[in-house]
Amino acid sequence: VSILLATGSWDPSPWRERLARHFPDRQIAVWPDVVYPSEVEHAVCWRPEPGLLSRFPNLKAIHSLGAGVDHLFADPDLPNVTIVRVIDPDLTNRMSEWVALNVLLHHRQTLTFLEQQRARLWKDPIGTPAARDIRVGVMGMGELGRDAAWKLQILGYDVAGWSRSGEGLDGMDTYSAADLDEFLARTDILVVLLPLTASTRGILNRDLFSKLARHGRLGGPVLINAGRGGLQVDADILSALADGILMAASLDVFETEPLPASSPFWNHPRVLVTPHVAAESDAEAVSAFIARQIRTIDGGGTPQGVVDRVDGY
Amino acid sequence: VSILLATGSWDPSPWRERLARHFPDRQIAVWPDVVYPSEVEHAVCWRPEPGLLSRFPNLKAIHSLGAGVDHLFADPDLPNVTIVRVIDPDLTNRMSEWVALNVLLHHRQTLTFLEQQRARLWKDPIGTPAARDIRVGVMGMGELGRDAAWKLQILGYDVAGWSRSGEGLDGMDTYSAADLDEFLARTDILVVLLPLTASTRGILNRDLFSKLARHGRLGGPVLINAGRGGLQVDADILSALADGILMAASLDVFETEPLPASSPFWNHPRVLVTPHVAAESDAEAVSAFIARQIRTIDGGGTPQGVVDRVDGY
Repeated sequence: VSILLATGSWDPSPWRERLARHFPDRQIAVWPDVVYPSEVEHAVCWRPEPGLLSRFPNLKAIHSLGAGVDHLFADPDLPNVTIVRVIDPDLTNRMSEWVALNVLLHHRQTLTFLEQQRARLWKDPIGTPAARDIRVGVMGMGELGRDAAWKLQILGYDVAGWSRSGEGLDGMDTYSAADLDEFLARTDILVVLLPLTASTRGILNRDLFSKLARHGRLGGPVLINAGRGGLQVDADILSALADGILMAASLDVFETEPLPASSPFWNHPRVLVTPHVAAESDAEAVSAFIARQIRTIDGGGTPQGVVDRVDGY
Repeated sequence: VSILLATGSWDPSPWRERLARHFPDRQIAVWPDVVYPSEVEHAVCWRPEPGLLSRFPNLKAIHSLGAGVDHLFADPDLPNVTIVRVIDPDLTNRMSEWVALNVLLHHRQTLTFLEQQRARLWKDPIGTPAARDIRVGVMGMGELGRDAAWKLQILGYDVAGWSRSGEGLDGMDTYSAADLDEFLARTDILVVLLPLTASTRGILNRDLFSKLARHGRLGGPVLINAGRGGLQVDADILSALADGILMAASLDVFETEPLPASSPFWNHPRVLVTPHVAAESDAEAVSAFIARQIRTIDGGGTPQGVVDRVDGY
């Protein structure tokens, strides 16, 4: 039996090498290597080409190489088999690093201090609020959102969560779908860790931004998106920044990636751009996780992180 | 009876106003207001002028307006009365914000990403280490050091502490004075939250930097000083950066403050300068703390944060 590896534009070699170590008795077929379609029981994928996965009649499961699975649902011919995403403590922790960094960075006015530094200006803007005076709202309370929310709370922030179901963390206010406006109205820094689905696509738009807290301690709301570019409307972020509806943003993801050189985000003085690096997959940890999942499925057990096809995450 | 308020170059009014609210029945005398020297039992100070405090024969206690007391010991005529510093959860938390921000900032290569952003460069430096692969060493395990160390551990870092006595946090390696070299040899990011005393003055010098870990995951050691400028030798930091003995630094404090406009730190591409703002005192919280301390002392009790005159902290 074979494991198919289809990694889109990613270099497959780190994954092939590690999967081969975990499964010395199986063929690890890197698409478009020659493979007998009927031999393939598991597909390990990142942005596989549409239609590819429907060619394997004995496919049991599709394993996403990342926490997100929207890249799989982009395929209209996606076969009706088990879809599992990666739940990796390493990936979760990396995401929380990036989120904590960007929340702290806006709260502690790092862009202003860097500007002052370039101007050789020793100026103490007395009145920096404490973390407890900053209301952070985490949209998306899955594995990633819960970890980030908990760590931000430990750093002292006034944190609330938002999830479709209203489920979140013990001891933290978590708003549900129906209470989105209330959640936004109490949020100074909006951290977005939502999955990209039919119902979240484009959710970060001007209408949503205009509902964020107007009288917080930072002078205006801040958007931090480490989820997916498809969640946001780039043009709305730019116009909201221009109108003061947003004060600043940290963006790791964009509607089009790589971000085109012509994008106004690059030289916007109140936007931090990172090239989709918030939470890089660690090939070692992710391969080990997927190997465990494959053995669980082959042994008839239930793997972790099974995706709901209807909800899309 | 009177409370003397001597705040050096700081504006005394926020403190006077709040102390007056706590003690409506006492005179709050802002130096050099007219005051009967024999009436003064408590002095609340920040960088008082040398010799001033020796003029009050009935002084019971000197209250520092900050966590540090080195500014008091700079007075050769400091009277032999109780000296207490501020232990304020708000100040501690603000310091940990700044420390966490700067550790994350160097670890996650923010200066490089800002440079890439200015160059409109979408470039993913694959291989960012995880927090667990970064060894942070916290020098000084008092109130501030312990809080920062604990929070850095929660963010995932491999944290150890160093204190003269070897006392630190449960479950965290803490090295003592005798093991300084061993502590430095396992440290990629050095966070300094030491008090300034006769034995720590100038401790951050070329000799110490050269003992930091040479083969860490960041390409070179990083210095983060939020303690006191007197701990560091500015010229040694610059030469260590030039020679690669240090890779980068975040400095909130300097030998001379304000940092002179001619300092090479201002435009150094691998140094972050902030103007001594890591942990600003919150006048409300600090005044309430000092009011409690004054009542405790007047009631014959033992206040918090009494300073050891021999150790100087």
